[in-house]
Amino acid sequence: MEWGFKENEEVDAAATLTIRNILEAIKRNIDDEKTSGKPMIHLGHGDPSVYPCFRASTSVEDALVESVRSANFNSYPAGVGIEPARRAVAEYLSKDLPYNITNDDVFLTAGANHAIEVLLTVLGRPGANILFPRPNYPVYEARARFSPLEVRHFDLLPDKGWEVDLDALKSLADAKTVAIVVINPGNPCGNVFTFDHMKKIAETARELGVLVIADEVYAHQVYAEKPYIPMGVLGDVAPVLTVGSLSKRWLIPGWRFGWIAMNDPTRILQQTGVAGSLKSCLTISADPPTVIQGAIPRVIKNTPESFFLNVNKLLKEAADLFYEKVKEIPLVTCPHKPEGSMFAMVKLNIEGLKDVVDDTDFCMKLAKEECMILFPGDAVGLKNWVRVSIATEPQVLEDGIKRMKAFCFKHAKHD
Amino acid sequence: MEWGFKENEEVDAAATLTIRNILEAIKRNIDDEKTSGKPMIHLGHGDPSVYPCFRASTSVEDALVESVRSANFNSYPAGVGIEPARRAVAEYLSKDLPYNITNDDVFLTAGANHAIEVLLTVLGRPGANILFPRPNYPVYEARARFSPLEVRHFDLLPDKGWEVDLDALKSLADAKTVAIVVINPGNPCGNVFTFDHMKKIAETARELGVLVIADEVYAHQVYAEKPYIPMGVLGDVAPVLTVGSLSKRWLIPGWRFGWIAMNDPTRILQQTGVAGSLKSCLTISADPPTVIQGAIPRVIKNTPESFFLNVNKLLKEAADLFYEKVKEIPLVTCPHKPEGSMFAMVKLNIEGLKDVVDDTDFCMKLAKEECMILFPGDAVGLKNWVRVSIATEPQVLEDGIKRMKAFCFKHAKHD
Repeated sequence: MEWGFKENEEVDAAATLTIRNILEAIKRNIDDEKTSGKPMIHLGHGDPSVYPCFRASTSVEDALVESVRSANFNSYPAGVGIEPARRAVAEYLSKDLPYNITNDDVFLTAGANHAIEVLLTVLGRPGANILFPRPNYPVYEARARFSPLEVRHFDLLPDKGWEVDLDALKSLADAKTVAIVVINPGNPCGNVFTFDHMKKIAETARELGVLVIADEVYAHQVYAEKPYIPMGVLGDVAPVLTVGSLSKRWLIPGWRFGWIAMNDPTRILQQTGVAGSLKSCLTISADPPTVIQGAIPRVIKNTPESFFLNVNKLLKEAADLFYEKVKEIPLVTCPHKPEGSMFAMVKLNIEGLKDVVDDTDFCMKLAKEECMILFPGDAVGLKNWVRVSIATEPQVLEDGIKRMKAFCFKHAKHD
Repeated sequence: MEWGFKENEEVDAAATLTIRNILEAIKRNIDDEKTSGKPMIHLGHGDPSVYPCFRASTSVEDALVESVRSANFNSYPAGVGIEPARRAVAEYLSKDLPYNITNDDVFLTAGANHAIEVLLTVLGRPGANILFPRPNYPVYEARARFSPLEVRHFDLLPDKGWEVDLDALKSLADAKTVAIVVINPGNPCGNVFTFDHMKKIAETARELGVLVIADEVYAHQVYAEKPYIPMGVLGDVAPVLTVGSLSKRWLIPGWRFGWIAMNDPTRILQQTGVAGSLKSCLTISADPPTVIQGAIPRVIKNTPESFFLNVNKLLKEAADLFYEKVKEIPLVTCPHKPEGSMFAMVKLNIEGLKDVVDDTDFCMKLAKEECMILFPGDAVGLKNWVRVSIATEPQVLEDGIKRMKAFCFKHAKHD
């Protein structure tokens, strides 16, 4: 019997780039015999919601329960989202902007990954190209495979606090460039941009005639000196499409609630029709459930400031602990102490390790021997680095560093 | 200033095909002056959840509240869905099958529209074609625009109870055909297939070497003599990918919870790699929120049978009322009384109407003059028909029929 359907190799190839698939492959490598009795330490992704200290605020639970009990949010939503939720997000974002955005500037999505899918679908057209940072958040790379978009990479510079290599950025662009992506606070680098640097990025975007996709999924999750500044404050320099989410700040990544916000006081996105195409795309795409949308105004309004302060305090303590302790690990360097988000990028001295050929091999063997998960740098664009999530209980983080240390000692070359 | 980005005409064109966009356009046509005082009667879509008699069971609310309060479902889900929810869906579906499917056969999606998106993404490849019914549910047509899939249409036959024109089906297919889509209970036709007819469809699929996409979003929503039979009972004849949802039977379309289930006891979808590609696609696609997935086992287990019986009783009464009363409307015919789902297809005698050029014009003018929304047949593939949702309070349905009648009298030619 011959069937007319078969696997889709393009879809399979795109999926291999994702954090989910890579973490699954690493987890499968854990050798229960070798690691008997050890609980798994998972510093591979930005989801601390399983740890009691990172539990969501009860105000968030109350908001969703109230939405459910009202029975007012069981009907189909509008593609762009229901008006009260869009307005709540617009008001929330406007607090940090020199102008106000309205509900019409906000499109609700089923999480930030879905927002990325929508953006790349709308911006994709044959011959066009887009500028991604290196290292990058892998969903951008995976989703770009589905759009007729050529991807070009500019470097983030570890020795300059992971700032954008602006000269490289300029040299990459041409008349067919549609957008540049910046992620601030940084994933995977844990850095925070200064206003001056953001201004230079926006001015470069304007010079190049491109829009800025500002991935601010870790907005307000900063804990060093630099304040969090949204790219939208520079929306009058170049149009900014902000990708945001409640996942990280509110510690509810499983709720899959995000948005695309147009920070564009001069209305260029309306005039060029990009705003209309975003609405079109959301008409035929997945929705965040109405019952969750119904909770959003209260989620935003009722979560106490003390909750956010406490989360940032925990992250700061984790960054301090990690940055000090990692220095004791041989053959590993962290060039920049995390200032924001949940991550640190750590460089491996592969030359000094026997029987570890690269970062992926490092992560595979670390899983096998130490029952510990890290995310390989190659998968975010930096060969022989690893991405470490610091958002965990202090004791778990300390134990994790001990396991990394033991692993490195065990595998170090002895010349 | 010249910008490098612009609107996406392909995305905009796809969106114009959707129910959401078409209903929006019709609603915008309502003339508040002309219809002053009249409440809107919306028989344009399958969402009765705003009517008190179609309110979801409190057991469903309880299940979600329990999921929220547990705080166990705030973390990222697996791309294919969390295991307890997949298992609950597998057990639910297995009750109607001659074999059991397992959690590995079930992929959770952010609603049935999202399931359609995933299926067409996975099945799409250059040169391939897919067979859609005419009339069809418009999201298939819209999403097919995003895949390199040529769409071919076979007719459903109104005079044969909207059965598939099997000869046409065979003549359309060739070696590049990947799948046929069947929607049962029917949207937009409100029909229910017999087992004999379904068997012929499955045998035809096998003969052609294609899989069956069985859209069973209205599963169990039947209220005439014919029982509901899932296409999966014929999974050993040809592989069946079932699209399902809690939206309609549980009356929670806004929860956006659906699935793709593999009904494939001979494991052809595994062997050909289609199963793997579905998993891949879901790894990079939107997710149903974990907090909703967490509620699914209880939603399915705890909703009393009496709830479903009552909904079907209400729909049967609506079908009876509609089918009797519609006969009194001049220039309108309903060839087949609804047996399942929430819809009836009604044929317009356009020749007999002055100043109404087609079904879209009919719907636009009906909105303008009578503050009443119907869905134009052209948008589901049948020019000069209209799709009527019967899932509403009896009084609203009766008033709606009166408005249609008044409209037709007013616009009838007087020869």
